[in-house]
Amino acid sequence: MIPDDLVRSIAQDARRASRRLATIEPHIKDAALRAMADALPAHQPDLLEANRRDLEAAQAAGLSRAMIDRLTLNEKRIREMAESLRRVATLDDPVGEIWDVHVRPNGLTVGRMRVPIGVIAIIYESRPNVTSDAASLCVKSGNAVILRGGKEAIHSNSKIAEIMSAAGRQAGLPENAIQLVPTTDRAAVSAMLKLADWIDLVIPRGGRSLIETVVRESTIPVIKHYDGNCYIYVDERANLDMALAIIVNAKTQRPGVCNAVETVLLHNCILEQFLPRLVEALRTKGVEIRASERCRKVVPDLVPATEEDWRTEYLDLILAIHSVGSPEEAIEFINTYGSHHTDAIVTEDYARAMAFLRGVDSSCVFVNASTRFSDGGEFGMGCEIGISTDKLHARGPMGLRELTTSKFIVLGSGQVRTGAS
Amino acid sequence: MIPDDLVRSIAQDARRASRRLATIEPHIKDAALRAMADALPAHQPDLLEANRRDLEAAQAAGLSRAMIDRLTLNEKRIREMAESLRRVATLDDPVGEIWDVHVRPNGLTVGRMRVPIGVIAIIYESRPNVTSDAASLCVKSGNAVILRGGKEAIHSNSKIAEIMSAAGRQAGLPENAIQLVPTTDRAAVSAMLKLADWIDLVIPRGGRSLIETVVRESTIPVIKHYDGNCYIYVDERANLDMALAIIVNAKTQRPGVCNAVETVLLHNCILEQFLPRLVEALRTKGVEIRASERCRKVVPDLVPATEEDWRTEYLDLILAIHSVGSPEEAIEFINTYGSHHTDAIVTEDYARAMAFLRGVDSSCVFVNASTRFSDGGEFGMGCEIGISTDKLHARGPMGLRELTTSKFIVLGSGQVRTGAS
Repeated sequence: MIPDDLVRSIAQDARRASRRLATIEPHIKDAALRAMADALPAHQPDLLEANRRDLEAAQAAGLSRAMIDRLTLNEKRIREMAESLRRVATLDDPVGEIWDVHVRPNGLTVGRMRVPIGVIAIIYESRPNVTSDAASLCVKSGNAVILRGGKEAIHSNSKIAEIMSAAGRQAGLPENAIQLVPTTDRAAVSAMLKLADWIDLVIPRGGRSLIETVVRESTIPVIKHYDGNCYIYVDERANLDMALAIIVNAKTQRPGVCNAVETVLLHNCILEQFLPRLVEALRTKGVEIRASERCRKVVPDLVPATEEDWRTEYLDLILAIHSVGSPEEAIEFINTYGSHHTDAIVTEDYARAMAFLRGVDSSCVFVNASTRFSDGGEFGMGCEIGISTDKLHARGPMGLRELTTSKFIVLGSGQVRTGAS
Repeated sequence: MIPDDLVRSIAQDARRASRRLATIEPHIKDAALRAMADALPAHQPDLLEANRRDLEAAQAAGLSRAMIDRLTLNEKRIREMAESLRRVATLDDPVGEIWDVHVRPNGLTVGRMRVPIGVIAIIYESRPNVTSDAASLCVKSGNAVILRGGKEAIHSNSKIAEIMSAAGRQAGLPENAIQLVPTTDRAAVSAMLKLADWIDLVIPRGGRSLIETVVRESTIPVIKHYDGNCYIYVDERANLDMALAIIVNAKTQRPGVCNAVETVLLHNCILEQFLPRLVEALRTKGVEIRASERCRKVVPDLVPATEEDWRTEYLDLILAIHSVGSPEEAIEFINTYGSHHTDAIVTEDYARAMAFLRGVDSSCVFVNASTRFSDGGEFGMGCEIGISTDKLHARGPMGLRELTTSKFIVLGSGQVRTGAS
């Protein structure tokens, strides 16, 4: 089948499945997720065999050790995938919630009902557990899902999707609730991104170039997950012990993730007092520091920072430090150079905390806490399909609710409209 | 200036304005809206003069009488624009609302804060009052707006925007809160649609071909307002007097608008009893009826309908009628042929009403009321920038709240993250 026909047929099947999924009883979805959780470990030999083929190809292609590690399945990782499916099954079903209900003067009752989005395509790279994670969240939220993993994981992803689909169907899910595009042909993605009649949302999960390509080619709405170039501003009125603990945590607890801090802004008035302590604490943890001129006057042996540093997501034990004259300057700086992901202020001053919350144009804005908490699980959402850096529909950590939309419902008793307009 | 540079400069100015607008005090925005409402009638001679230039060009270009009517400004229409501005000033400010607040086990307080989207571009056709309506809703919701009207209204739109900008600035709005693209060069729109770094949302208001062009060219998220091909399903268990009143109202009260009904589905069991009454009532109102075979067996002199009729938004005194064997069949039919805008069921049966509400995949789903109520004003939203037929971000009538987004706010007392992940 040529890619265009193939993906159109997949998308049309997904649309049909989505109609059934939209009104399926919650207990069927949960039973299906538990059946999938049973099925994955039960098919461990098949999964490892499929994964072995991907790993052989990866070694032959000379992929990096880190990539091969991400690609690797083993007993522990299969068990974790299953546990994650079971956890999703225990979450509250988001579909059908009715809210914002009010009665109009003419007696009409107007409200909103939470409903699935419909058909969601997930385009992702390398790690096979994204296949089971993404599929489970889409199913739980009543959406049909089309998965398109990276070519390096095609055998593993196909086997995971096959096992989950079969288990789901047996438990009562409609045919084609979960589909995986069975080709690594790049043209299939391009064709898929034009199918706005059958696919409602595309979520690319991967590097910037993947996301940019999807945005450029897609006529379907896309929710993007870009970098996290996170800032912490330490105010003149901060508790400096708290500031120290927060910065060290945000930089070193897990430096390779999007909610780690990358640049710290210090109020000029605390530079002399705080910067030497901060530098010492960070160096003990092996952090390299790049600092602006004014900071280097206080601690001369710091590496000079350039403007490029303010824009850089290091994902490593490197931290940029700059100083500012006011909270307003900090807000302006963060809005200019940050990535609108997660930024924090450390202060004991109420008005400054409020101004920072209002003024920083980011998906998550913190007062007196480590940026590392920017995470669906930590926010109490139970799960996360990613952290949206978009402003529309979903902003910040995306859980089940963010995989739904709403409709207006209007309950009448025979009302008709009168008047001229 | 070449179009690329022109629109980039406009967009960058808008971004700067949006930063100030995001945290401006509500009373300044309201004072600005009232100042604009004073300024428009005060500049009536200038407005009429600008409008005269557009009307002359329109007559020279041979535009239809309907288009020329839409384009025309007069004392009454200028007064209505001003009244609309005053009404927007009285609405609640949506910005800064905090909701969904909960405390995590570690003491972090996590919530959401409503904030403006940022910079919104509105691309629209013909009617000059869209200029003032759209600008006022964007300003009230704290967004900077870039207006791009049709070329036939360029002089009128420019003058309206100029008057509103000046009045707004004097009342304390930031420079460039309201801008109008001062060229009718098509290339300016194409260039603008690529400026995703400075423009957050594009709302095209106009015909299908305008919207499709915008979607194809834009790398900025777009909220679409497509047709309303609305359905009413009359169930076997309907109160038939109510059904008759609702259908006649939905078809004839104002046939040229998107929430008028276009196709009625009748349960087979009520055909004999109800169809002749319905035909008579509609014919009295001058409605042409196109019906499927089974309906024509009951009332033989009806025009035969084709499949094309089920997909058609007539916007006229024409109604298609079809019959179905069950509510399920009605839901399936509406999901297949409707435009997912507004659809209604008439029934006294609780389970069928609920199944219809859940099953119909439309932005507004009604029980026992005329589809004509599908409107931001009728829903109690106070205003409306359009009716989104998209599923993401805003679905159905869009008011001030739909012109905002949210951020997560996290209030801590020094929390740092522990544990392995």
